Amino acid sequence: MCEANAYLKDGDNEVLFMESVDIIEPYENGLKLMDIFGKQMFIQAKIKDMTLLNHRIILERTDI
Amino acid sequence: MCEANAYLKDGDNEVLFMESVDIIEPYENGLKLMDIFGKQMFIQAKIKDMTLLNHRIILERTDI
Repeated sequence: MCEANAYLKDGDNEVLFMESVDIIEPYENGLKLMDIFGKQMFIQAKIKDMTLLNHRIILERTDI
Repeated sequence: MCEANAYLKDGDNEVLFMESVDIIEPYENGLKLMDIFGKQMFIQAKIKDMTLLNHRIILERTDI
């Protein structure tokens, strides 16, 4: 399976936000993430970078 | 392998921009993409959405 884990950048740290992410799409001021089980989470953030072979997506909070 | 193909949104169409993408990261006004072979491409765009299980990343051009 090719899902990835989404981490939220917090200063120099990266905190796990959601595991097994399949879909990321824009939603209002931020992003909607859906995992492989269909669970949805919303966050006011943008995609900073990603390394798919490492299954890592880094999100960064945005201001309104 | 969990690479994805990156498509550029062009009106209602999505045109293949780069295959077998591993890494996407910010670069100057846009994005740098690197494929699993190490080839790099730059594009003035942002990530619009993605479906990892479908190996699809949709990019959207941005103005400077």
